[in-house]
Amino acid sequence: MIDFPTAQKAGELLTRVRERRPRVHCLMNTVVQKFTADGITAVGGIPSMTSSPEEIEDFVLMVDALTINLGTLDEARRKVIRQAVAIANAKGKPWIIDPVHCDYSPSRLAFAREMLALGPAIVRGNQAEMSVIGDVAKALRIQTGPQDLLQDQNRAATIHNGHPWMAKVTGTGCLSGGVIAAFMAVETDPVLAAAAALTATGVSAEIAARHSRGPGTFEAAFLDALNGLSTDEIVSFARIERHEN
Amino acid sequence: MIDFPTAQKAGELLTRVRERRPRVHCLMNTVVQKFTADGITAVGGIPSMTSSPEEIEDFVLMVDALTINLGTLDEARRKVIRQAVAIANAKGKPWIIDPVHCDYSPSRLAFAREMLALGPAIVRGNQAEMSVIGDVAKALRIQTGPQDLLQDQNRAATIHNGHPWMAKVTGTGCLSGGVIAAFMAVETDPVLAAAAALTATGVSAEIAARHSRGPGTFEAAFLDALNGLSTDEIVSFARIERHEN
Amino acid sequence: MIDFPTAQKAGELLTRVRERRPRVHCLMNTVVQKFTADGITAVGGIPSMTSSPEEIEDFVLMVDALTINLGTLDEARRKVIRQAVAIANAKGKPWIIDPVHCDYSPSRLAFAREMLALGPAIVRGNQAEMSVIGDVAKALRIQTGPQDLLQDQNRAATIHNGHPWMAKVTGTGCLSGGVIAAFMAVETDPVLAAAAALTATGVSAEIAARHSRGPGTFEAAFLDALNGLSTDEIVSFARIERHEN
Repeated sequence: MIDFPTAQKAGELLTRVRERRPRVHCLMNTVVQKFTADGITAVGGIPSMTSSPEEIEDFVLMVDALTINLGTLDEARRKVIRQAVAIANAKGKPWIIDPVHCDYSPSRLAFAREMLALGPAIVRGNQAEMSVIGDVAKALRIQTGPQDLLQDQNRAATIHNGHPWMAKVTGTGCLSGGVIAAFMAVETDPVLAAAAALTATGVSAEIAARHSRGPGTFEAAFLDALNGLSTDEIVSFARIERHEN
Repeated sequence: MIDFPTAQKAGELLTRVRERRPRVHCLMNTVVQKFTADGITAVGGIPSMTSSPEEIEDFVLMVDALTINLGTLDEARRKVIRQAVAIANAKGKPWIIDPVHCDYSPSRLAFAREMLALGPAIVRGNQAEMSVIGDVAKALRIQTGPQDLLQDQNRAATIHNGHPWMAKVTGTGCLSGGVIAAFMAVETDPVLAAAAALTATGVSAEIAARHSRGPGTFEAAFLDALNGLSTDEIVSFARIERHEN
Repeated sequence: MIDFPTAQKAGELLTRVRERRPRVHCLMNTVVQKFTADGITAVGGIPSMTSSPEEIEDFVLMVDALTINLGTLDEARRKVIRQAVAIANAKGKPWIIDPVHCDYSPSRLAFAREMLALGPAIVRGNQAEMSVIGDVAKALRIQTGPQDLLQDQNRAATIHNGHPWMAKVTGTGCLSGGVIAAFMAVETDPVLAAAAALTATGVSAEIAARHSRGPGTFEAAFLDALNGLSTDEIVSFARIERHEN
């Protein structure tokens, strides 16, 4: 039996993240490490960030899920990502990959495909990135933007929540990868986990926009809203559309 | 015929940046990558940030202008900056250099001079940095501070816009390098491009200060103001002083 | 004769930091470099951040104090930290160490112990970090959290200032290491310097919380409050408890 994401389920999973406080390790571009860490903390998780090869095994063993982000990707981070994915796969820890700007660089795209072959639970990108990624076999495919589209082999859904200012704040997509990982730590079905995470961030963005004058104040208000988000707010404001696949 | 910067021209160039959405690559210190990216986005450009030697050629070929910032400069970034500048020069893409803290370190100053010999369109620093840099041959020389002074071989101008809280927010100078690069992508005359960019950031700072209690809220309000800045606001508030050279 | 920290002394030291504007070099994890720099600036110091081995000697010679933070610790930063500490010790410059997440990784803990043997003035961590660190010989030991506990061989004190949202903002502990270093630059007694710095940050957090809706707006308001903090506010709100040791 296959479950479809619902607002009710999103609310339940948010409560579960807050109760269990999952640890999320981020192999994250150097640009948005703090914003991503603040987002994971706001939703109820505990972030860590090292990209050191000497330490990565210790950290991956300590955490519940990983987000692998390909922004500012150099050879050192390529190596440490390979290490981290090998350990995560060996230990059955879920991971999501975010192939940032893979449409700019053939070498980055090649690395993204190498990682996709290793079986992430989810791949998330914007339209330009997902169009060059192409098919992704068994992973849940998420294209974020004005709407967030989720599609696996059996199900498809659109999350209609969010706000245009999200695109004006560097790193909202990267942050959502970290928040999705926190939800993956408490829910084994990637579709349910990701839909809940994207509903939580999208509803928080809508709440934040009411308290903002532009993208700068929106960024702060977004973290406020994510931190204070109630299951009632999720259930009231969620706009999750189910598609026949 | 030589043009002098005016408020009207600054407004026109802001409109042009918003319409053309130039791509700006940043070889940026690790401290203020997100703030710089948010500033470029707020003004209408599209930022990228990788310092990876495997990827830099792809990224430089994709973008319209570069900002080269010497903060947190290590040997790896020295190499990638040399790569990026060689490609930019070969392809005729404009670049600006920001010799952060070159007054602290002789090795950083030596590298700044090596880069200056390669022909940036603009060099921008604070008073301490510009005094050790000395003459800069053909580049437009910009000294930012309470006033911003622009001087090339034929023209000199002072931008009197800005706010003291800019000096309390780490990275406003670095951000302005990125914003100047966005304007250089749409205007080949460095004096007109830089004067417009510094007027836009200075006027935005003045608007932001009205909505702030200190440097923390100012930073957020500054991004709001830069994102919402109208050509009317630029024309109304610009204080560009032309000097006989 | 041994002095105990007081609110009055904390106010005096804040004034001294603002007058002398000490330079603080940070060997800082890549996540919170900007937030730490903004905090040092807000309190009145001048931050720098390079981790480049070619530049570290120049920078350490220029500054008045150092903060050594073990977040996102790789082999390159281990080496540069060793260089920096050797120069600081040779020149008699005070330094504080912050063994971030040393409870996650045996190799990071081993490096923390190697550094502790080199004689930092202060070691600061959270409860999990300080419990694995164990005894620290002559250094002042600080455990931050809901209360901040300071203990050296002769004195112990608790700072009761602060706000729970500090734990929701990534890097408040790292920032406090930078602020403590700024106070160490103007006061040779580590207990007095650290108590003043933690009182300043704790009181600022309390002031900030009144202007905030959650951790996002709190972060901005905290920098506002730290920048605007008066000695009267410190003296009025400080809650420094002296213990018999």
